[in-house]
Amino acid sequence: MNWENIFATRMGRMKASEIRELLKLLDQPDIISFAGGIPDPALFPTEAFQDAMTDALSPQNSSAALQYSVSEGYGPLRDWIVEQMEALGIPCTRDNVLITSGSQQALDYLGKMMLSPGDTALVTWPTYMGALGAFNAYEPTYDRLMPGGNRSADDYAKTAEAAGGRVKFAYASVDFANPTGETLDLTARENILDLAEVLDIAVIEDSAYQTLRYDGDPIPPMLALEIARKGSIEECRTLYCGSFSKSLAPGLRVGWVCGAASVISQLVLMKQAADLHSATLNQMAINSVARSVFSDHTAKLRRTYSARRNTMLDALAEHMPEGVTWTKPEGGMFVWLTLPKQMDGAALLKSALETQKLAFVPGQAFYADRSNANTLRLSFSLADDEKIKEGMKRLGAAIRAQM
Amino acid sequence: MNWENIFATRMGRMKASEIRELLKLLDQPDIISFAGGIPDPALFPTEAFQDAMTDALSPQNSSAALQYSVSEGYGPLRDWIVEQMEALGIPCTRDNVLITSGSQQALDYLGKMMLSPGDTALVTWPTYMGALGAFNAYEPTYDRLMPGGNRSADDYAKTAEAAGGRVKFAYASVDFANPTGETLDLTARENILDLAEVLDIAVIEDSAYQTLRYDGDPIPPMLALEIARKGSIEECRTLYCGSFSKSLAPGLRVGWVCGAASVISQLVLMKQAADLHSATLNQMAINSVARSVFSDHTAKLRRTYSARRNTMLDALAEHMPEGVTWTKPEGGMFVWLTLPKQMDGAALLKSALETQKLAFVPGQAFYADRSNANTLRLSFSLADDEKIKEGMKRLGAAIRAQM
Repeated sequence: MNWENIFATRMGRMKASEIRELLKLLDQPDIISFAGGIPDPALFPTEAFQDAMTDALSPQNSSAALQYSVSEGYGPLRDWIVEQMEALGIPCTRDNVLITSGSQQALDYLGKMMLSPGDTALVTWPTYMGALGAFNAYEPTYDRLMPGGNRSADDYAKTAEAAGGRVKFAYASVDFANPTGETLDLTARENILDLAEVLDIAVIEDSAYQTLRYDGDPIPPMLALEIARKGSIEECRTLYCGSFSKSLAPGLRVGWVCGAASVISQLVLMKQAADLHSATLNQMAINSVARSVFSDHTAKLRRTYSARRNTMLDALAEHMPEGVTWTKPEGGMFVWLTLPKQMDGAALLKSALETQKLAFVPGQAFYADRSNANTLRLSFSLADDEKIKEGMKRLGAAIRAQM
Repeated sequence: MNWENIFATRMGRMKASEIRELLKLLDQPDIISFAGGIPDPALFPTEAFQDAMTDALSPQNSSAALQYSVSEGYGPLRDWIVEQMEALGIPCTRDNVLITSGSQQALDYLGKMMLSPGDTALVTWPTYMGALGAFNAYEPTYDRLMPGGNRSADDYAKTAEAAGGRVKFAYASVDFANPTGETLDLTARENILDLAEVLDIAVIEDSAYQTLRYDGDPIPPMLALEIARKGSIEECRTLYCGSFSKSLAPGLRVGWVCGAASVISQLVLMKQAADLHSATLNQMAINSVARSVFSDHTAKLRRTYSARRNTMLDALAEHMPEGVTWTKPEGGMFVWLTLPKQMDGAALLKSALETQKLAFVPGQAFYADRSNANTLRLSFSLADDEKIKEGMKRLGAAIRAQM
């Protein structure tokens, strides 16, 4: 049987991800890996989850916890998220919040909601490769979002038309982005909103790392800035994607989308058709844990991860040869390295694995146009100080060997 | 802002479901409802889930339970499913099984994998409305699958071509189907496989209710029949969708797809892009509960539900007026009623709610062509004997009032 005859055209866009292949390396204990952008499990609030599960499975709650539930999500958890959104300058109600199975699912649903084949999605160069993966299923063309404002709306519109569609949205990770660790400043956020107004498109604001700021002043989310312009979330074109994966734990798969109620209600219909609802038990547990430990727990994460970031930045300064540059993130999990132009991150990974037992993610897969092969992503979330120091030393040796 | 300018064409196919609106009625305690096809929460194996969660969140397991995990699913759970599949005549390995967030997600992914706009999906008249909802996102045309074999492959192919595409798959719920409660006999299963061979299409076998057989002899799954023809699952075009929602609990959202490894690997890529993986903790808990209580627990479900089915069939015989017919399911959760031709299930529901405080699901939404409004679905899984008797009495009165 030739399945190619039966597959939809979109299957031509589904490729194995390099991150995925690399994550398999984590099972080898002698590799020092800075590849996966995953939380340190030693920091999970396990006791709080134990208490939350005991409560969710108690006689008064278990019938609801184990049963089907509504597609929009567990009400008390949506209420807690509303409080968090309001603290970020986003006044809203429960009707503005859909619970998703991680913010990855939010990206899938938003692509599904807006993209017909040939439509254009604006993404930064580089961007979160999981966003490209989610959007690819809906067969878009990508164009380069320039948060500096250095391309005209008219140019974007004409380029999209030539590609056979229309620009549908701009996607941006705003705080300590995956993969660069960089944060969009206020001007960049306002520029994106201005561009979206002229193009009449949506804005997808990926805020997965929002709670992990280690220094510098917080910058208002684009959704807050747009509400400040327009007076109400119901008038806004920004759709904010949040996640508990980095703040509490990823294994429960709980995230959310916050936006105009008219859009959320469409996403609820989509979720109902796609997987009915996110696991009831998990939403109840996340709600309990968020309400009991969120503030203290995220403070602890910030203390630990910021120390690891500092160690990595110091070790990079010590061990990187001339010609290598890197970002100085104010939060999150990632540092982004740029190698001399002629070097290739994938070739470097191959030699680093073989000669140095060292892993990271080559940068090319984060570019929609597969440009800039001379980049790589390092995650500092999982390794302790000694491993970070030793790892950066090995990285310096691996780079020198390829120069 | 006019979101219609931004929505993908598929959004024109996303409509609120009648089941969803009806489920809201369950909150009113004075309504007797046979609407939702949901398990009785009094029967959930709650203690086994408590033990499983305690184990999953113990020091030796919690780091894995709360962390990201692989898209294909938790290995030990896939192994348990392999054993179940083998007992059904489906020899396979872990590589033939993808864990999904309920079998609803499997239907979404299979539609996404195969349907380009204008392609044709063959479904029975009536069929599971959640399958229509999942497939609708990929903009298919529907044609009527006749398991009796009374339409030629050539006719299907020409009709699909005229609709602007190709037949991609036949979807069938094989055992005690939602909504009819009916089971496809061996001849019907072989007919569908024959048709799929000639049309060179896939077969989606929805087996969500498989464990809930109360009497009659089990009939081999279509995937088992196809393996018997071809010698190996790797040569097969049938994709089997299973679920723990009816056998253990729906609130954890765990189901699976079993099929050729080459197709499963494509679905793994799709899942990775769409939601990374199903909740790790939930897969570990379902694995523990399945291994400790599955056999005893499903035996208990069968005893309870079969008694309720008997009560409903007896009460229908007592209270239905002449001209009303209904199915006699050998398992599952549903009885399907056919009213006299001129009657309308939706109008009957409206009057039944008002005058009898009685709820069920009108049948029209289960037909891809919205035909046969003179039908309705009754679920016997949730109500006790007294409510079933009282409910069928009220249903008889409501029908007589409309005749």
